[in-house]
Amino acid sequence: MAHYDLLVIGTGPAGQKAAVQAAKLGKRVGVIERKEVVGGVCINTGTIPSKSLREAVLYLSGFRQRGIYGAEYRLKKTITIEDLAYRANHVIKNEIQIVQNQMARNRVELLSGSASFLDPHRLRIEQRSSTAEHTADFIVIAVGTEPARPPDIPFDDSSVIDTDGLLTLKRIPESIVIVGGGVIGTEYASILAAMGVPVTLIDKRPRLLEFVDAEIINALQRQMKEMGVTLYHEEEVLAIKRETDNSIHVCLRHANPIQASTLMYAIGRAGATRTLNLETVGLTPDKRGRLIVNEHFQTAMPHIYAVGDIIGFPALASTSMQQGRHASCHAFGHADRTDNSLLPYGIYAIPEISMVGRNEEELTQAQVPYGVGIAHYKEIARGQLIGDETGMLKLLFHRQTKELLGVHVIGEGATELIHIGQAVMAYHGRIGYFIDTVFNYPTLAECYKVAALDGINRLPRPWPQAL
Amino acid sequence: MAHYDLLVIGTGPAGQKAAVQAAKLGKRVGVIERKEVVGGVCINTGTIPSKSLREAVLYLSGFRQRGIYGAEYRLKKTITIEDLAYRANHVIKNEIQIVQNQMARNRVELLSGSASFLDPHRLRIEQRSSTAEHTADFIVIAVGTEPARPPDIPFDDSSVIDTDGLLTLKRIPESIVIVGGGVIGTEYASILAAMGVPVTLIDKRPRLLEFVDAEIINALQRQMKEMGVTLYHEEEVLAIKRETDNSIHVCLRHANPIQASTLMYAIGRAGATRTLNLETVGLTPDKRGRLIVNEHFQTAMPHIYAVGDIIGFPALASTSMQQGRHASCHAFGHADRTDNSLLPYGIYAIPEISMVGRNEEELTQAQVPYGVGIAHYKEIARGQLIGDETGMLKLLFHRQTKELLGVHVIGEGATELIHIGQAVMAYHGRIGYFIDTVFNYPTLAECYKVAALDGINRLPRPWPQAL
Repeated sequence: MAHYDLLVIGTGPAGQKAAVQAAKLGKRVGVIERKEVVGGVCINTGTIPSKSLREAVLYLSGFRQRGIYGAEYRLKKTITIEDLAYRANHVIKNEIQIVQNQMARNRVELLSGSASFLDPHRLRIEQRSSTAEHTADFIVIAVGTEPARPPDIPFDDSSVIDTDGLLTLKRIPESIVIVGGGVIGTEYASILAAMGVPVTLIDKRPRLLEFVDAEIINALQRQMKEMGVTLYHEEEVLAIKRETDNSIHVCLRHANPIQASTLMYAIGRAGATRTLNLETVGLTPDKRGRLIVNEHFQTAMPHIYAVGDIIGFPALASTSMQQGRHASCHAFGHADRTDNSLLPYGIYAIPEISMVGRNEEELTQAQVPYGVGIAHYKEIARGQLIGDETGMLKLLFHRQTKELLGVHVIGEGATELIHIGQAVMAYHGRIGYFIDTVFNYPTLAECYKVAALDGINRLPRPWPQAL
Repeated sequence: MAHYDLLVIGTGPAGQKAAVQAAKLGKRVGVIERKEVVGGVCINTGTIPSKSLREAVLYLSGFRQRGIYGAEYRLKKTITIEDLAYRANHVIKNEIQIVQNQMARNRVELLSGSASFLDPHRLRIEQRSSTAEHTADFIVIAVGTEPARPPDIPFDDSSVIDTDGLLTLKRIPESIVIVGGGVIGTEYASILAAMGVPVTLIDKRPRLLEFVDAEIINALQRQMKEMGVTLYHEEEVLAIKRETDNSIHVCLRHANPIQASTLMYAIGRAGATRTLNLETVGLTPDKRGRLIVNEHFQTAMPHIYAVGDIIGFPALASTSMQQGRHASCHAFGHADRTDNSLLPYGIYAIPEISMVGRNEEELTQAQVPYGVGIAHYKEIARGQLIGDETGMLKLLFHRQTKELLGVHVIGEGATELIHIGQAVMAYHGRIGYFIDTVFNYPTLAECYKVAALDGINRLPRPWPQAL
């Protein structure tokens, strides 16, 4: 039994950063992990494996080069799960090492076992053969989520899988139905399509990823269709039946039934709060196991914070890290200077999507007079060089002040490119910045200049005359 | 015979942008090109072909993936010139189209033929079967350079080539000696080495690219050696002899003679001023055919500007474009707001290098108290995902104010990544920006955060405590 300034439950991105931040503030910190390895869903089953898969597919399928060499030019005609898992395992091992080193370097104590509350300041940590109890002034819940498994879906981890199940399959699916067009469903649909797997993606809503700019999503949906994804919008699965040959038969509300070798259920993830014994401390998760927090990530018990996927949208590694940091800063009275209006979003579909700031719908609602400037990758040399014929960058800016208000990108490197606009927005810069700036040639960053000029050209004349 | 507000000689990046800028200011502009296609060295023999070659080599050789899949994993065992030229031609055709469209859209008149001065305001334009004369208020000389061909080098365009000669070879060299470790020599040396060609690079100076941060160059040289480049520093070629079997025998001042199938002479480019008849207007190029200009790119004749490679360092497409724009803005009394201290440099070697702002030598000389922060790609998830084990990003900042003073990057995506730091510097931002900012995960941009934290950690304690 020991007393800590801070106990963190979970070693995913949110938990890691909460722990390290508190340690850097000179606090005694323990972090509890019930799995055998650190890193949480991010490293072990979610972000890192899916991004590894994506990189492997882009490379092995020659996908990036199709604009240049044609669709037939690919490295491996038959991609195997081993090919894909090879890279993922390599990266996972490294990332685990990095996280462990960072915690050790900052003297964060790693406590192995499953945590549950005994009272508001006391946790029980259960290992296979022993238990321990520790107390803390502050507690951060960063337990993450796991795929929801509704009882009416006949999961069998081979024909019917959840979103963790792809990389443990024995073979790449002959065809797949993905139910749910959220971030995970969309990413996997496009990655599998790039591998040549026939994909059907079924979603309840009128378009994918409703929080993303509509024009960007139109471009995404068009490209996914070109890659061979069949998209069903405003559609619902009524029943899923496994045939005797193990193929899957899916009944839909509106359209004809469809068949595939595999079904991935990608709707919803549930907070991993079940074993925490939250009722002891008077905390009640919602029906999806999620916790409600205030702007400082405090739960109803002010000394207990919740961060990361467990609090819901956006459930991205990057924002979760920031939440963890913020919680520790807040707990120990240290100012956090991060501007939360400038959190970027990255979606690792094929093509990649990223955005920062506001979108057109938000600006319209807020009655901000805004202008739009667009650059297509194919207009710039770098776009030609990498063979990305479809990428596009869109700037939104204030019509009068020309202040940059939002950046929305689809195409290769989108998640990197967005940070240039993010920096300009952080300093309340105007789109004139992009017009006056010299970018390396040939780079995708030149899209900012082309888009800014396009935006200026669309405004009523007389327009400013600098190139 | 017509009268123009501006006549531009040359359609490379500098000439294009000078012409389009003036046209946007409402001026009548003519641009003269003696080649059959627009675009100059940049599009036709220099930047674009070499970057296309580089992309093709990175892809076809599997070079990018060696960190993940091992060196044996490559798409094509034997890369041919056709493989390489295919991509280059594709991109060149597109870029020519884009330049032509941009000029047409802005009503820039394209005048085909070879220009020479008749008097300070009058040019003669000579075509195969006819000549014309035109006058202009202002003239911009943007004729670029061509490879220097000293008489003692036995050029034959097959065994002994200049830097334009690689893509017109029939076969990929069995081995190559490159004389001259400037930007072009270094880029080609690393690209050929990535293809598996044994390369010897000979340079007079103690290290490659002296204008680049020393630590970055050490990393580059180390990696080039690992790729199989033999580097000779402070060495000079005394004689070049072609053997009867067409192989090349090179005598050096210090080391033993070396032999190779091919030699590329990559020292110096000469201004293409010979046919301009500059003496008529009292302008005298230096012995390398270059013109001297003031800070507004005016020659000794104030209404005659010179921009681009013809004025020497840095001779990059990006800076040349800016020079062209600046010249036209200056000629027609329009302010140019570009901050020339923030021009980025991009070197497309393998690995890629980029930098913006000042380097350590400059800061030391200026007696600025500076701190250093470094991030290695292998420390961040994205570096692991792309298998770049050697990339690194280095921040230089003011020790007291923490203002960002320089960014130096080597590794994949360096030329894109630099623009984030460039934006922060434009707003006189501090490295705290990177600490407080949420970056997409996993991206290379996270290097900025890791480097900023490293920089803070190296300062004497007590250091600021935010993560």
